[in-house]
Amino acid sequence: MIGGAVRGTVYLVGAGPGDPEMLTVRALRFIQSADVIFHDDLVTEEILALAGPETLITSVGKRCGRPRITQAGIHTLMVEAARAGQSVVRLKSGDPLIFGRAGEEIAALRAAEVPFEIVPGVTAALGAGAALVLPLTDRRFASSLIFATGHHALVGEDDAQPIWQGILPPNATLVIYMPGRDLGRLQRDLDAAGVSSEMPCAVVSNAATARQEYVAGCVAEMGSWTCGPGPLLVMVGAAVQSLLGLAARILPGEERTELQTQMTSH
Amino acid sequence: MIGGAVRGTVYLVGAGPGDPEMLTVRALRFIQSADVIFHDDLVTEEILALAGPETLITSVGKRCGRPRITQAGIHTLMVEAARAGQSVVRLKSGDPLIFGRAGEEIAALRAAEVPFEIVPGVTAALGAGAALVLPLTDRRFASSLIFATGHHALVGEDDAQPIWQGILPPNATLVIYMPGRDLGRLQRDLDAAGVSSEMPCAVVSNAATARQEYVAGCVAEMGSWTCGPGPLLVMVGAAVQSLLGLAARILPGEERTELQTQMTSH
Repeated sequence: MIGGAVRGTVYLVGAGPGDPEMLTVRALRFIQSADVIFHDDLVTEEILALAGPETLITSVGKRCGRPRITQAGIHTLMVEAARAGQSVVRLKSGDPLIFGRAGEEIAALRAAEVPFEIVPGVTAALGAGAALVLPLTDRRFASSLIFATGHHALVGEDDAQPIWQGILPPNATLVIYMPGRDLGRLQRDLDAAGVSSEMPCAVVSNAATARQEYVAGCVAEMGSWTCGPGPLLVMVGAAVQSLLGLAARILPGEERTELQTQMTSH
Repeated sequence: MIGGAVRGTVYLVGAGPGDPEMLTVRALRFIQSADVIFHDDLVTEEILALAGPETLITSVGKRCGRPRITQAGIHTLMVEAARAGQSVVRLKSGDPLIFGRAGEEIAALRAAEVPFEIVPGVTAALGAGAALVLPLTDRRFASSLIFATGHHALVGEDDAQPIWQGILPPNATLVIYMPGRDLGRLQRDLDAAGVSSEMPCAVVSNAATARQEYVAGCVAEMGSWTCGPGPLLVMVGAAVQSLLGLAARILPGEERTELQTQMTSH
């Protein structure tokens, strides 16, 4: 740092599932007072609309066909804005520390001696659990909750790792972030991890937003499901059975195959 | 429901780690407008102070030597208040669906045909990760994040289950909620789950509050640590090593044993 320069701060902020009401009070405050916002693709328009009219808003998302910005490029943008004395919000959907590249961004901010703070958020799994009325750790069905990522979660890399190495305990609820669109491959991964083909599971798109949809059934059926557009979340475990029960109660007398797609909103 | 009666709603609300700034906007709104609040012991005074002057605030916590209220008693309180037309906030620390008895409370509300909504929150692990600047899923060290509960997590029951059944993958970050005070027993459980004695770990008390403290080191040392008062959270995994590095950088030149207790605040 040059002596006497105004020092800005970078806030790594969790935007939650997308509904402005699911922001934390602290996240809302930093978004409203930011000079610049660098956001990922999954951050919703409703959240970005909370920024002031003077705020410079830049997408640094790596999807959607835009010319790619590198991770190093994001670091440079953040560091330069902070060194120019600006209040910088680095906005990530969900919680900023869950399956993003916060680790690398923190290392870059430390190396540049830029002050920063992390503002946690409601991660997609918990937002989806609330919106679906699905107690992920209901002690009658689950004693642990696992967050994992699917194949190809890392853009531009061929991540050939399975979603889980070893055998999953039967009393766990598994939530898979960024599962990809190949549900057949995911089903085979779950088989390989010792998950029963009868285990309840659900594929949720646009979790915890007004556009949320889901398909629920058992692992044996997963490979045959098609999923709509929007970010996906896959949930697997005995705790998910309450979702099947709920669907059955809402629409009694219809066939299960017709029950599998339900619109929900919170 | 009696025809024509005013129907109240029950909001199962996550209070987050304890700092009012970590509440979601929606949680804050319901707390401020509640007629009655039924809260767990871990909900902080700062959060309860946000309620209006007319709000009836009742602790339904099961600890701290108070005469115990049963789970069924909590259900009755919620249902009766809602049937009296009141706006009822059932306030739980962290996220309402993580390791509480939300499953049973939801079942009771459904059975009583009381309208309800779940408002998610920042769970302790994510609050602690942010406050400690600890990326729990840093892809260089972890590909999954596991939440589990310790022994005796359920008050009044002798829960003899280990915290994990089977072998933990080496690339997981494990966060243990309500680990109890017997860290030696926890260390033996981790050994049994195949966790290396050299694996980094931390014991955090009052996570993500101004009173946060932690001890960090490796699993082999855990059994010898003493922990202060306040709710504990245990974190285990290669991702925790960044905490050790940070401690070393903050206080260079001191002995590691003196580094193990660090005060942090956010």
